[in-house]
Amino acid sequence: MNTKTENTAATTSPAEIASNLDACQSLTEKVQVILPIIANNAQLAEEERKVPKENIELLKKIGFTRAFQPKAYGGLEVTLAEFGECVATLAGACASTAWASSLLATHSHQLALFSPKLQEEVWGQDPLATLSSSVAPLGKIEEVEGGIRISGDLTWSSGCDHAEWAILGFIRKGNEHFPEPHTHFAVVPRSDYEIIDDWYACAMKGSGTKTLKVRDVFVPNYRIESAKALMEGKSSGYGLYPDSEIFFSPYRPYFACGFSAISLGIAEQMIKWFIVRSKTRVRAYTGAEVGKDVPAYMRLAESRHQVNAARALLEKDWNDLTQQSKSQVLPSADQLANWRTNQAYAVKMCIQAVDRLFESSGANAWFNHNEAQRLFRDSHMTAAHAYTDYDVCAQIFGRHLVGLEPDPKVI
Amino acid sequence: MNTKTENTAATTSPAEIASNLDACQSLTEKVQVILPIIANNAQLAEEERKVPKENIELLKKIGFTRAFQPKAYGGLEVTLAEFGECVATLAGACASTAWASSLLATHSHQLALFSPKLQEEVWGQDPLATLSSSVAPLGKIEEVEGGIRISGDLTWSSGCDHAEWAILGFIRKGNEHFPEPHTHFAVVPRSDYEIIDDWYACAMKGSGTKTLKVRDVFVPNYRIESAKALMEGKSSGYGLYPDSEIFFSPYRPYFACGFSAISLGIAEQMIKWFIVRSKTRVRAYTGAEVGKDVPAYMRLAESRHQVNAARALLEKDWNDLTQQSKSQVLPSADQLANWRTNQAYAVKMCIQAVDRLFESSGANAWFNHNEAQRLFRDSHMTAAHAYTDYDVCAQIFGRHLVGLEPDPKVI
Amino acid sequence: MNTKTENTAATTSPAEIASNLDACQSLTEKVQVILPIIANNAQLAEEERKVPKENIELLKKIGFTRAFQPKAYGGLEVTLAEFGECVATLAGACASTAWASSLLATHSHQLALFSPKLQEEVWGQDPLATLSSSVAPLGKIEEVEGGIRISGDLTWSSGCDHAEWAILGFIRKGNEHFPEPHTHFAVVPRSDYEIIDDWYACAMKGSGTKTLKVRDVFVPNYRIESAKALMEGKSSGYGLYPDSEIFFSPYRPYFACGFSAISLGIAEQMIKWFIVRSKTRVRAYTGAEVGKDVPAYMRLAESRHQVNAARALLEKDWNDLTQQSKSQVLPSADQLANWRTNQAYAVKMCIQAVDRLFESSGANAWFNHNEAQRLFRDSHMTAAHAYTDYDVCAQIFGRHLVGLEPDPKVI
Amino acid sequence: MNTKTENTAATTSPAEIASNLDACQSLTEKVQVILPIIANNAQLAEEERKVPKENIELLKKIGFTRAFQPKAYGGLEVTLAEFGECVATLAGACASTAWASSLLATHSHQLALFSPKLQEEVWGQDPLATLSSSVAPLGKIEEVEGGIRISGDLTWSSGCDHAEWAILGFIRKGNEHFPEPHTHFAVVPRSDYEIIDDWYACAMKGSGTKTLKVRDVFVPNYRIESAKALMEGKSSGYGLYPDSEIFFSPYRPYFACGFSAISLGIAEQMIKWFIVRSKTRVRAYTGAEVGKDVPAYMRLAESRHQVNAARALLEKDWNDLTQQSKSQVLPSADQLANWRTNQAYAVKMCIQAVDRLFESSGANAWFNHNEAQRLFRDSHMTAAHAYTDYDVCAQIFGRHLVGLEPDPKVI
Repeated sequence: MNTKTENTAATTSPAEIASNLDACQSLTEKVQVILPIIANNAQLAEEERKVPKENIELLKKIGFTRAFQPKAYGGLEVTLAEFGECVATLAGACASTAWASSLLATHSHQLALFSPKLQEEVWGQDPLATLSSSVAPLGKIEEVEGGIRISGDLTWSSGCDHAEWAILGFIRKGNEHFPEPHTHFAVVPRSDYEIIDDWYACAMKGSGTKTLKVRDVFVPNYRIESAKALMEGKSSGYGLYPDSEIFFSPYRPYFACGFSAISLGIAEQMIKWFIVRSKTRVRAYTGAEVGKDVPAYMRLAESRHQVNAARALLEKDWNDLTQQSKSQVLPSADQLANWRTNQAYAVKMCIQAVDRLFESSGANAWFNHNEAQRLFRDSHMTAAHAYTDYDVCAQIFGRHLVGLEPDPKVI
Repeated sequence: MNTKTENTAATTSPAEIASNLDACQSLTEKVQVILPIIANNAQLAEEERKVPKENIELLKKIGFTRAFQPKAYGGLEVTLAEFGECVATLAGACASTAWASSLLATHSHQLALFSPKLQEEVWGQDPLATLSSSVAPLGKIEEVEGGIRISGDLTWSSGCDHAEWAILGFIRKGNEHFPEPHTHFAVVPRSDYEIIDDWYACAMKGSGTKTLKVRDVFVPNYRIESAKALMEGKSSGYGLYPDSEIFFSPYRPYFACGFSAISLGIAEQMIKWFIVRSKTRVRAYTGAEVGKDVPAYMRLAESRHQVNAARALLEKDWNDLTQQSKSQVLPSADQLANWRTNQAYAVKMCIQAVDRLFESSGANAWFNHNEAQRLFRDSHMTAAHAYTDYDVCAQIFGRHLVGLEPDPKVI
Repeated sequence: MNTKTENTAATTSPAEIASNLDACQSLTEKVQVILPIIANNAQLAEEERKVPKENIELLKKIGFTRAFQPKAYGGLEVTLAEFGECVATLAGACASTAWASSLLATHSHQLALFSPKLQEEVWGQDPLATLSSSVAPLGKIEEVEGGIRISGDLTWSSGCDHAEWAILGFIRKGNEHFPEPHTHFAVVPRSDYEIIDDWYACAMKGSGTKTLKVRDVFVPNYRIESAKALMEGKSSGYGLYPDSEIFFSPYRPYFACGFSAISLGIAEQMIKWFIVRSKTRVRAYTGAEVGKDVPAYMRLAESRHQVNAARALLEKDWNDLTQQSKSQVLPSADQLANWRTNQAYAVKMCIQAVDRLFESSGANAWFNHNEAQRLFRDSHMTAAHAYTDYDVCAQIFGRHLVGLEPDPKVI
Repeated sequence: MNTKTENTAATTSPAEIASNLDACQSLTEKVQVILPIIANNAQLAEEERKVPKENIELLKKIGFTRAFQPKAYGGLEVTLAEFGECVATLAGACASTAWASSLLATHSHQLALFSPKLQEEVWGQDPLATLSSSVAPLGKIEEVEGGIRISGDLTWSSGCDHAEWAILGFIRKGNEHFPEPHTHFAVVPRSDYEIIDDWYACAMKGSGTKTLKVRDVFVPNYRIESAKALMEGKSSGYGLYPDSEIFFSPYRPYFACGFSAISLGIAEQMIKWFIVRSKTRVRAYTGAEVGKDVPAYMRLAESRHQVNAARALLEKDWNDLTQQSKSQVLPSADQLANWRTNQAYAVKMCIQAVDRLFESSGANAWFNHNEAQRLFRDSHMTAAHAYTDYDVCAQIFGRHLVGLEPDPKVI
C-alpha cells in the first residue's frame, strides 16, 4: 500500500483548489480541501526532515497559521475546539506537518499576551509572520541594562525553518510577585539565531525540530514575559483585545493543545487504514481472509471505542476551554490540573489504540512505503513531549487530587 | 471505615427531607437529598438481598421511578442525559438500589411504546405502578386464540419484589414484516407469577434479581410487542405522545442505559473513597503514609483520568440520544452500533479504574464493613450483564466497522 | 455448578483414605489423596470463617504442617520446590485452607532458627505443635529483666484457631550489630493471648485471620529473635542442624513462599473450571455455544500462557532457593531482591489470568454456589498481603536495579 | 548516546579476538568474544540493509552458523537451550544480525532431516554452506518427471545474501499418508534464483529480508520434503544420525526458536540501556533527576520482572525440547501446542517490557544515534512474523485447550 495512491488526491490543480477554498466557510472545511496535497507530501516531509514548502504555503493560504492571531492583525481567532479539530484532521494526513504548523499557530496565541510593542514589531510589517519556539529554559543569560543577553543551543524548535521569529526559554531571577527564579520567554528575530540542521530522528521526521544556536543576543524587556505571568493574566498584553473570546486565558492550554489533537488524528487515520486493509488482507501461509477474522475485527472495535473515548474527553475539554475563554474568568486550579493532564491520558489511549491495530497488521505493514508504520512511529512520539509525558501528568494530577502541594520538579 | 458513618446522613428527619425536597427543581437535586439515606441502607440491602422498602418509597416519592413515564400518567419524561446522571449518583450510594430501581424506571419507557390499552391497564388505576422484567427469551409459549399461553422459570428479574407487573421474553413465530421467529415481550400482572427467592450472589446483592415462576398464563395480544418493532418505531404505541421528546426512539438505548451509569457511579465513589483513605492510611509494617506515596497517587490520577474519559464518552452518547429523541428521526445503524457498544467500553474502563485503586488498598479494604470491597464486587458485576459483555460488543461493533452482516448469535 | 458435586470426592471412607495414603511416597502425592475432601469442605470453611477441623486433621496426618519442621522433631524437611507445589495444589481445592495451613507450616522453618531451648519447649512434648503469627510490629513493649513485656491487639493471625503458639512482631531497640530500632519476633504460648473472633472479610473467608489480644505478657529473651538476625544467619538457632538442606537460609523466602503458590493454584483451578464450563455454556439470549466462540477460547489461551509464565518464574525461584539452601551459602542482595519481588509479579500475573476468564464468564458465575466467584475473590486477595503488594515490590526492586539504597519505608 | 561508544569494543584487534576465542570452551563464550564487534556494526547493518560481511565471517568462525549442523559434516549439534541463549545474547548487540544468522543456523537442522543425497550435495564440498528460506507456500509449481518445476517471487528470505542455498515453500498434491494438498519445501542452489534488493523496512533493517526470484526451476524429488513429514519423523533423513541428541525432533521448534530468543535479547538490552540512562538523565524543564524518580524505577522493575518471567518460560521450554530430542520420542500434541504458542506469549511480554521503558525515555531516545529507538523498532517487529503472531497462537492454543479440532486457516 502506498501513501500516495492511498490518499489519492494530488491531481487537483491549483486553480481547482483555489475555487474549492472559495466555497468554504470555516477553517475546518478549508483544511479538508488541502488535505490530499498534505497527504501526498507525507513521504517528502520525511525525506526533507522538515515540513515541505508547499504545505506551509497552503496552510498560510487557508489561514491555519493565523488561527489564534489577533483579528487586529488579520488573524482568525477561531475557538480552541475548532482548532483542535483542524489539527487532528491535518495529523491524519501528515503528523509532522500538523506538529510543526500547529506550534507555529499556537505561538501566535502566546504572542498576543506579550506587549503591544512586540506584537507590532512582529506583525506590523508582516502579518503572516510566525514564531517557532524552544521553551525549555536552556538559555544562559546575563542581566543587562533594559533587558538580557542570551546564549545557548536551544533545542527542539519544530518548524523553525519556516518561522520569522523564535521564543526562547530561560530562567530569570524572581520579582515582587514571584520571588523565586522562574522560567521566562524571550522573543527574538530570525537574524538573531542560526538553525543547526540536526533533526535526525526516527519519528515525526518531517517536523524539522532543530536546534537554534544563539550567541550573546540582546533582548529588551518588552520582548520578555514570564511563564507565570502568562498563566495568570499578568503579562503585559493581557486584556489588550477586550472583545476577544480566546485571549482571556492562560497561555498554556492553547500553546500545547496540538499534541493530543495530533495523537487523536493519527489514531483515527490508523483506524481508517485498518478498515481498508481488513477488507483485502490475505495471510500468505493459509490464504485466510485475516481482516474478517474475529480477532482482527475485535481489535478494530476496541481501538475505535478507545479513540471514541479519547475524542470525547478532548472535545469536552476543548469546549470547556472555549467557554472559559469566552467567560473571561481565569480557570481554577482544578480545571487547570484536569486540562493539563487529561490530554496526556488521551494521548496514552490513542497510542494504545494504534498499537492494538499495528501489532496485528503483519510484516507488510513495516515496509517504508506502507503508511501504517509511519502512523505507528509518529503516534508513539506524541507521548515523548514533556507536556504529554504520562508519568509527569499522573504525578501532577495525583498530588492535586490528594491535596499535596505541586512538586516543582514535576511540572 | 464504616459505610454508615462515612456517608454520615441518616439523622435527617422525614420532615427535613420533605422540606429539602420542596426546595428542589430537578430530579438530580432530589436524588441528592435522599442520597444519605440510600447510602445508609447499603448494608441492609445486601442483608435483605433486595432493595430496602424505605429506598423504594423515597425513590417513588421523588419521581425517580417515573422518570420515563408518559406525562399523560403523571410521569416526568426527563431526558436520558438527566436520568443517566441520577443513576450514576444513586449508584455511588448503593449500586444494588440503582440497578433495580433504574430498571423499574426504564421499563416505563418501554411500556410507553406498547398499546394504549395496556398502558391504561397498568397506569390507569395506579399511576405509580412499575414493571420488572426477564427479557431473555426463556418463556415457553403456545399460540392460542387472541394471544399466547406462556410458562417458564424466567430468571434475573431485578427489583421484582417491588413491581406490580413483569415483562417476559419469549420467541414467537415471524410475521409479514420479520419472517423469522424472533424475540417478543409479554406484559403480565403480579398475580400471574410467583417470585422464587433465589437471589444468592456475591455482588449486587441488594438488587433482588430473582426468578419469576410462570405457569400456563394467557397473555392477550395487546399486551405483546416484538423487540424488533420496539426498535424500529413499529410497535402499537409508537407516536402515541406526539409532543414527547423521549418516546420517538428505539426502546433499547433507554431500556439499558442504567448499567453503564451504575458502573460510572461506582467508580466515582471508589475515587472519593480512595482520596479520603489516602489522607489517613498508614502501613502497618513501616508506619509509612502510603496514601501520599507516589505509586498511590499516580494510581489515583490514572483512575480519575480513565473515569473522566468514560464519563465524557457516556455524556456524549447521552446527549446524542437526547437529541435524537427530540428530533423524532430514528437513529442510523451506525449510531445504534456506537451507542450499543460504547457503553460496554465505558463499563470496562470504569472497572479498570476501580481495580487499579482497590488492588493497592491493602487487606483492610477487604473487611465486610469496608465500603471499598462492596464497590469492587458491584463494579465487576456491572460487566456481567449480556448488554455490557465486552466480547459481545466488540464483535458487534467490529463486524459493523468492517462491513460484515450482524451475526445473529451475537446481539 | 456446585463446588461439592464438581469436586466429586467426599464419598471416600476414612479407611480408603488411610489405605491410599499408605501407598504414597511423597507429600505431593499425599496432598492429592486428601484433596477431594478439602475441596468438599470449601463452602464450610467460608461459613465457619476458619479452616474446618477435618482439614487440619488431614493436613497434620499427611505431615503437611510439618513440611519444614526439623527432622530431629519428626519433621519432613521437604524442599521449598516440593512445598510450593503442594501449596498450589491445595489452593486449587480451598485457598483459605492453603493460606492458613501453609503459614502454620512455614512458621516451623522460622522456629528452627530460634534457640534450641524454645524449640524444645514448643516441640519437645508436642511434636505436632504449630504456630500462627502476627508479624507486623504492632506489639507495644516494655524492656524488663531477662526479656520484655508485650501488649497489643495483634491482627491478621491466619490459622490461629489451630495453633498452640504465636509469633508476635514488635520494634525493639538496636544492638551492637544493628544500632537502629528494628523488628523483632516474640514466640508466646496459646495461654498468653486471647483470640478475638473478628474475621469478617469478603475473601479468603475460611482462613480465620483473626486478632490476638495480648496483655502485658512476659517473654524471656530466648523466645525472641530479630528479623535481621533471621535474615542474615545470625539468629541463635542458625546452624543448629548441620546436615539440613533447608535451614541454611534466610527465613523470609520460606516464611512467605505460600502466597504466590496459592495465587498460582487458584489460577490453575480457574483455568480448569473455565474449560469445563466452555464445553457446556450456552448464552440465554441466543442459544450460542459461547465457550466454543473465538473470544472465549482466546481468553483461555492467554490466561493459560500467562499462568505458564508465572509458574515457570516461581519454579525457577523455588529451585534456586532449594539450591541455595543446600549450598549453605547465604544468598546475595541481588538474589534476595529478585526472590522477594518476582513472587509478587507472579501473583499479579495470576490475578490477571483469573480476571480475564472470570470477566467473560457471565452472570451465573456470580452465584454463591458457583466455584468461580470464590476463585475470583480469593485470587484478588492474594495480592492484598504486604509481601505481595506489587507497588511495594516494584519500588524495592527498582531501587535495587538503579543502585539506590533501600528505602526503610518500603520493605 | 551513541551505539558505537556505548558498546565500547571495536578496538580489539583480530589477533586478540583469535586468542580470546582459543580460550573459550562453549559457543556461548565465543559469542561473548565477538559481541562488541557485532554491536559496533549495528548501525552499518541498518545502512547496508543486510548483515555486514564482517559479522557473518565472525559468526562462521565461531561455529554459530553450524550450531545445528550434523557433526558428520563438522557441525556442533549444540542443544536448543544453548542455542537460544546465544541468539538472545547476539540480539542484544544487533537484532538484525541475530535474526538473519539464527535462521541460517536453524535451517541446517531442517536440512539434516532431508535426504542424505541432498545433504552431501550441500555440505560435501562446502561444509560451511548455509541456507536461507522463504517458507510461505508461494511457489507455483508444475509436476514433472522426477520432481517439480517451480516459479515465483518468494518473499521474506532473511540473510539470503550470505546463503549458498535456499528453501522454498509451495503446495504439492497429497499422497497416501496425507491425502490433502499440503506445504512442501524445495531446496535449490544459489544459481537457481536471483535476489531482488527490495528490503526497505523500518525495523530489523539489517536482516536483508529480500525476495527470491525463481523462474521455472527444476527440483528433483530428493531435494523435496513435506512440512508434515518433517514434523512427524517421516522425512527421508529422519534417524540418519542415530547418536544425535538434536535430530530426533520435529523440525519446527528448532526452525523457529530464534524469534523469541531475539525478542528476549532485545528486551534485556533495553533494560541495560535504561539502567545506564537512569543514572544520568536530567529533565530539561526542571533539572530533575528523572531516572531516580519513583515512576522511572518502578517501570524498570516491572519490565525486569516481566522479562524474568518471559525468560523463565522460554528456558523451561528450551530445556523440555532439549530433553525431548535426547529421548528420541516425538512430542505429544499438547507439548507441541505449548511450545508453538508459549514463545509468542514470551514475545508479547518482551515487547511490553520494552514499550514500558521506551515510552518513558523522553524525546532524546528517538534520535537515530540512540540505541533505544532501534531496540524499540526491532522489538516490535519480533511479533510481526507469522510464527509469533499472538492472535494466531491464541487461537491455536485456545482450540487445543477446549478440545476443538485445529483450524486449517490458523496454523
